[in-house]
Amino acid sequence: MYAVILAGGSGTRFWPLSREATPKQLLRVFGEKTMIQQTVSRLRDTLPAGNIYIITGRKYVPDIRSQVEAVAGAGLKIVTEPEARNTAPAIGLAALYIRRRSADAVMAVMPSDHVITKDDAFRKVLKKAAEIARKGYLTTIGVLPDRPETGYGYIQKGASLTKTDGIEGFKVQRFVEKPDAATARKYLKSGDYLWNSGIFVWRAKDILAEIRRQMPELHKGLASIEKAIGTKKEEEVTREVFSGIRPVSIDYGVMEKAARVAVVSADIGWCDMGSWIALAEVSPKDAVGNVITGNVIDIGSKDSIIYAGSRLIATIGLKGTVVVDTPDATLICGKEHTQDVRKVVVELKKKGAEELLEHVTVVRPWGSYTVLEVGNRYKIKRIVVNPGAKLSHQLHHHRSEHWVVVSGTARVTVGDKTYNVHPNESTYVPLSTGHRLENPGKVPLHLIEVQNGDYTAEDDIIRLEDDYGR
Amino acid sequence: MYAVILAGGSGTRFWPLSREATPKQLLRVFGEKTMIQQTVSRLRDTLPAGNIYIITGRKYVPDIRSQVEAVAGAGLKIVTEPEARNTAPAIGLAALYIRRRSADAVMAVMPSDHVITKDDAFRKVLKKAAEIARKGYLTTIGVLPDRPETGYGYIQKGASLTKTDGIEGFKVQRFVEKPDAATARKYLKSGDYLWNSGIFVWRAKDILAEIRRQMPELHKGLASIEKAIGTKKEEEVTREVFSGIRPVSIDYGVMEKAARVAVVSADIGWCDMGSWIALAEVSPKDAVGNVITGNVIDIGSKDSIIYAGSRLIATIGLKGTVVVDTPDATLICGKEHTQDVRKVVVELKKKGAEELLEHVTVVRPWGSYTVLEVGNRYKIKRIVVNPGAKLSHQLHHHRSEHWVVVSGTARVTVGDKTYNVHPNESTYVPLSTGHRLENPGKVPLHLIEVQNGDYTAEDDIIRLEDDYGR
Repeated sequence: MYAVILAGGSGTRFWPLSREATPKQLLRVFGEKTMIQQTVSRLRDTLPAGNIYIITGRKYVPDIRSQVEAVAGAGLKIVTEPEARNTAPAIGLAALYIRRRSADAVMAVMPSDHVITKDDAFRKVLKKAAEIARKGYLTTIGVLPDRPETGYGYIQKGASLTKTDGIEGFKVQRFVEKPDAATARKYLKSGDYLWNSGIFVWRAKDILAEIRRQMPELHKGLASIEKAIGTKKEEEVTREVFSGIRPVSIDYGVMEKAARVAVVSADIGWCDMGSWIALAEVSPKDAVGNVITGNVIDIGSKDSIIYAGSRLIATIGLKGTVVVDTPDATLICGKEHTQDVRKVVVELKKKGAEELLEHVTVVRPWGSYTVLEVGNRYKIKRIVVNPGAKLSHQLHHHRSEHWVVVSGTARVTVGDKTYNVHPNESTYVPLSTGHRLENPGKVPLHLIEVQNGDYTAEDDIIRLEDDYGR
Repeated sequence: MYAVILAGGSGTRFWPLSREATPKQLLRVFGEKTMIQQTVSRLRDTLPAGNIYIITGRKYVPDIRSQVEAVAGAGLKIVTEPEARNTAPAIGLAALYIRRRSADAVMAVMPSDHVITKDDAFRKVLKKAAEIARKGYLTTIGVLPDRPETGYGYIQKGASLTKTDGIEGFKVQRFVEKPDAATARKYLKSGDYLWNSGIFVWRAKDILAEIRRQMPELHKGLASIEKAIGTKKEEEVTREVFSGIRPVSIDYGVMEKAARVAVVSADIGWCDMGSWIALAEVSPKDAVGNVITGNVIDIGSKDSIIYAGSRLIATIGLKGTVVVDTPDATLICGKEHTQDVRKVVVELKKKGAEELLEHVTVVRPWGSYTVLEVGNRYKIKRIVVNPGAKLSHQLHHHRSEHWVVVSGTARVTVGDKTYNVHPNESTYVPLSTGHRLENPGKVPLHLIEVQNGDYTAEDDIIRLEDDYGR
């Protein structure tokens, strides 16, 4: 068995916690691990690392790699989508690789940013789904609804196919779109409907066959890629194919009209985290329905989600309100408007707002930096270098840098000199001078950097050498 | 004629814009000038600076002096209250000083943090009130109500005393407390009631006579102070008297039972700015009732007040909500709960929260500093020194300081050496070493300070010499 994790999403509905550089799957939204770390950990108990494929955009690869290796070790396969083209092309691409591994391989496909709280139940459901998939069914996971949710699509069950240990598989009668409230109540009451989780299990060859039947253009593209796999042209062909294909979801492109479709009903503590509301669904609430985290003083709010960090948020008498605070941006919105966070993102794009792109703290393979202030001709950063880590050997043409070490020891190379800088000592890196920063010690190195120059953006960097292949 | 401005208020209801170090009267809440600057400017057109008394607490004196001198020149009298004891003792103290200037002096008493948008009308009302005061009435300014406000006290008019240019004075029938909504509607409809503005005009000798009659203990204390005025003991006696007297408002202590009380009805665009709601009363609203300032992206909010600075605030679908953002703290509250901001302040006091005390940017006589980050054994500040200004000659026992000049030129003295530091240069001030920072140039000096040490609070400072007498 193989698994494919779809990790290309941009997570705009979780702004301001998510940013273009750090979409939802890379965030600790719920629990100690990031969403993708949770997804990988859940699979890793039963699958070898080499059977887990993560498909994502190029810009997310370094972060995803370091996150998943931290919880699952090396060896996971990361497949780069040249461009985001919705789920059908991504799944088709992954299926190619997996079919090459084994002609009858069964693959489970799942998003990287769903919450599943019952891991054991999930593994049992996957096993049952795999059993059905081996009979040639495209099998979906259908979640037992516990409320008349209007935010999810539903699956109507057909005839029972198999049942063991209380886990039952059915033929699919039909897929239905997100219902209105009255219809959702009817679905819940009838007991015939399950939530469409977007988690699928099938043989790679079966999904590719359905793609050939229903999406011939995509199939043609995938066939060209398959020919190029393992050759020098693989990357180029993949890029060309992706640039030409239409973005289509696997649900719309394949599932709704597929021939043999099954569903396994699942009680797995699932939530798709499609908006801030979903956070309240999976989090413990106080006596009056609030979910409150971080540095918050609240007086008498109800049914509200208040998600703060270290900045102080004071709330009084809110009802059904969502507050999400980050160092550089705060969202305040009625619960019924959480889907409109997308509209805010559109406005931010129009304005070219920095707050859309990145957090003030940016995680790097060697540690992290936090932008404390950007002003006219200067920028101030706090830099943390992990023990033993080393930044690239680099130079900047438009800025010089002053470094003041606050704690830990820095090994600094400026030009052809290398020396140590200790707490309460400083050093200076002139313009256009090769330099390198390293933490030779056993504790994190914290230093303050004051940049001076006519241009202080991150792209004024020439890397002469880099431990991380950047 | 004399004026007394009561400027001792701590302005807790305007948190997080107001802080303990910068109460409402020192803030630009509405318009380009601070509240006290507006109050002084309004009086200064008709009164010489030397006839304006400002009574406030010791800690506010330097900021008040620099603010009022910036709009009204030197010469205003600032009277220091040793302790805040509500309005009656403060007014009694000011009346002593004014009666010494002239036995029949008329004084107008007013808060420092009210909005008055019709300055001409206000001056005419004061003139009429002074005319009545000269006949021995304790005269109040009663504002014509335009809505059934439940947040103000009311004054019921009695017999007409005088009318000129449409401005009419009446005997006061009675003072009434803040009414409930039904009563407020009745008051508005009757036309017999005016809002109690807390602005008074009377002869100094008349208010002192009423204090003697109704508050004999306070009068006794004032008599001891009067004897000490002009002697070496003045400050000490004032401090002793204030430490012993009860805090009582002039309304409760004197006005409600005073013998000859009059009211002048006024249409002066008055608002007491008692809470964030009041800001909406005096500000222009958009088509759906919002008052929005600063870096805000709003999608579909109504009847809301969104008060931001340079941090990004995104709001969606709020109704009747108040959002106030500052760099280190954000308040979000239903409009009907704005009075409960006091409760937040109580919580902050319990926690000993920094966010109650000061803003991250602190204004000093020589410029300002902004705390960018405080961490373990370090603190980072951006410092702005005005052209020609000089910080005190000082030393710190627990921290050393690294300075990086970003723009302008610094003249730095460290130990017995004095030298200039230019943009993109840095210097270092060791522990326990006398040092001084000065801007000898014509443009503001901006520098970044990185403090290192086991204690980085502001009170580790020994001033060897100071231009500002601190």
